[in-house]
Amino acid sequence: MENLTNPHIKELMPRVAASSRSGPGIYLDCNELPYPPSPKVVQAIVEAIPRLNRYPDTLGGSLRKALANYAGVAEQKVIIGNGSDDLIELIIKVFIAPGEEVVILDPTFPIYALSTRVMDGHPVIFRRMTDFGIDFQYIIENITSTTKAIFIANPNNPTGSLVARQDLMHLIENVDCLVVIDECYYEFSQETIADLVDVYENLLILRSFSKSFGLAGLRLGYSIANKNIIDYLYRATQIYPINSLALVAGAAALGDWEYISSKVRQVCQERDLLREKMEQMGFIVSPSTANFLFVNTKPLGITSTNLSRILREQNIWVRDFGGKLGLDNYYFRTAIGTPAENQKLQAALNELLNNHA
Amino acid sequence: MENLTNPHIKELMPRVAASSRSGPGIYLDCNELPYPPSPKVVQAIVEAIPRLNRYPDTLGGSLRKALANYAGVAEQKVIIGNGSDDLIELIIKVFIAPGEEVVILDPTFPIYALSTRVMDGHPVIFRRMTDFGIDFQYIIENITSTTKAIFIANPNNPTGSLVARQDLMHLIENVDCLVVIDECYYEFSQETIADLVDVYENLLILRSFSKSFGLAGLRLGYSIANKNIIDYLYRATQIYPINSLALVAGAAALGDWEYISSKVRQVCQERDLLREKMEQMGFIVSPSTANFLFVNTKPLGITSTNLSRILREQNIWVRDFGGKLGLDNYYFRTAIGTPAENQKLQAALNELLNNHA
Ligand SMILES: Cc1ncc(COP(=O)(O)O)c(C=O)c1O
Ligand SMILES: Cc1ncc(COP(=O)(O)O)c(C=O)c1O
Repeated sequence: MENLTNPHIKELMPRVAASSRSGPGIYLDCNELPYPPSPKVVQAIVEAIPRLNRYPDTLGGSLRKALANYAGVAEQKVIIGNGSDDLIELIIKVFIAPGEEVVILDPTFPIYALSTRVMDGHPVIFRRMTDFGIDFQYIIENITSTTKAIFIANPNNPTGSLVARQDLMHLIENVDCLVVIDECYYEFSQETIADLVDVYENLLILRSFSKSFGLAGLRLGYSIANKNIIDYLYRATQIYPINSLALVAGAAALGDWEYISSKVRQVCQERDLLREKMEQMGFIVSPSTANFLFVNTKPLGITSTNLSRILREQNIWVRDFGGKLGLDNYYFRTAIGTPAENQKLQAALNELLNNHA
Repeated sequence: MENLTNPHIKELMPRVAASSRSGPGIYLDCNELPYPPSPKVVQAIVEAIPRLNRYPDTLGGSLRKALANYAGVAEQKVIIGNGSDDLIELIIKVFIAPGEEVVILDPTFPIYALSTRVMDGHPVIFRRMTDFGIDFQYIIENITSTTKAIFIANPNNPTGSLVARQDLMHLIENVDCLVVIDECYYEFSQETIADLVDVYENLLILRSFSKSFGLAGLRLGYSIANKNIIDYLYRATQIYPINSLALVAGAAALGDWEYISSKVRQVCQERDLLREKMEQMGFIVSPSTANFLFVNTKPLGITSTNLSRILREQNIWVRDFGGKLGLDNYYFRTAIGTPAENQKLQAALNELLNNHA
């Protein structure tokens, strides 16, 4: 089959299974919410199980309306996907032809580049500034006529940094391509430009139920844009991309805002506390408006790869970024866990630094 | 955005929501199993809900091994997807470049052509013979050097017809492209060529949990092929395409074979009974090895569109194929329901024919 496979696919990396996270570990490596779904979500799922022999509603059924309400837009301006990962690929499918360019601002979420390569597009990597902000003027001056989209995670993963509304508006107004603002961590940052989808014909917002809503396992994401963009995206999506349980769980989660907002509040408080503690230990911790912290280990003279390995021995999982995405050997990311988990992380870091010193 | 969207996407049809099937209808339009999941599947799902805040296992976790066992192949020869629809698109992504051809044998499952168009490939439609069999020699002589894949549903949807193993082998041996045998209805037909994936480097088998396993709502499909093909497919798939509940439900369903096989047996018995009754009414009913019947209304002088509309008024949903996929105005497909549902369908058809006469 070598000769039959598309050449650009052969250049992609073989996929290897991630280590299986089972048992009582402290999982801070995937930016998940550390809490189980609310009782109302559980109930909605359980009630839907007897109908699993039936195909899901196409176009997301009543969840689409609920999301439109939540986002404050008309239903035709929303599209639902099998996680926001699925929507990232859909966007590239619809807007990027083979060889065309997608601008990506590293260090950032690696799926933008991966999906671009899968679709035979060309990822063009611009670097964020040293404080992980974005040099918007540089982008405006340097994108080419074959650039069809720019992806900006806001807040950014893995850095946690947020760029300002006016800066995004300036960019959107001064480029001809699609600008995707990935607001996966919106409920933590409380910042959105979804209200601008009618102002700009080239703006698309991406959101997820994997983070603040604590439903990563169910795969549920959505996009908000003007009707024109959403209509084109729907032409290329699958007929039944979203499973029925995600549809009912998403609606139930939106209807149980009290549960979500109390968990989000708790995570943000813990985040600020943990940041303070880690700075006291000597780490440089980037300001974060999301549910994770991006940490520089350099002042302590330990590489992030070593630090992550030692934590893993105690079954504490963080995400090592040493040598990745253009970074040096001293960066890791940790999600915010439950208060007890965060304390264990602190204790483990303290011990590690004592032994290391 | 008109100017930014890929031109081939604009040529696709806008997506409209299917009528919502809620309430106590008789749903025979989607080839679903008419039974809810088994108690063991329900239990596995319920137990997994508290961990939905976590991302699913990549590559399908332990379900991949269970499927390999079930299919009688090594684990590296299996890939899992978000329904077989998802795998159809993945196959096209990996093997078909823009402008290359995919051979499709109409009337057949419309997603092969749709996914080909989404990926800017060129669907080449060959027609099945009048008995819905396949003229294999014609295919062998008429495919071009830009044909990269042939899709054959076996049994075929919507016709229910099965082609013979030796004929498939003859085709696979005499073409240079990938041959996809879609065995979505395998547990009903009991016919497979999955044992040949090591014999032929260009053979790929497609399977689903939507039909015999009764899990259409969860979205779970898989493919079997040699390691080489599976390795290439995995390079282009998403990181978390399959939700966690599908992973545990799929494993539980495989482990509860007694439930599945008794339901499959019942459906096949009912299918043969229903076929007999409908032939007695004067319909021409194609022989079927799947969980549905393909019915010609012509001898009764009523178009399938009229017949389907009248059934729908009684909340009985069948799938009208009148004027579709190159067929004339006299074809519909009905899934096999529970015995009670099949009797209601018969009664409604009897009444309809009496009123019509
Ligand atoms: C910025 C960003 N976008 C998208 C995603 C993917 O989210 P989902 O689980 O909805 O596919 C993530 C997950 O880490 C993310 O950090
Ligand atoms: C032949 C065939 N292949 C694939 C599918 C899609 O199945 P799934 O639900 O796994 O996407 C169907 C569903 O009708 C089908 O009939």
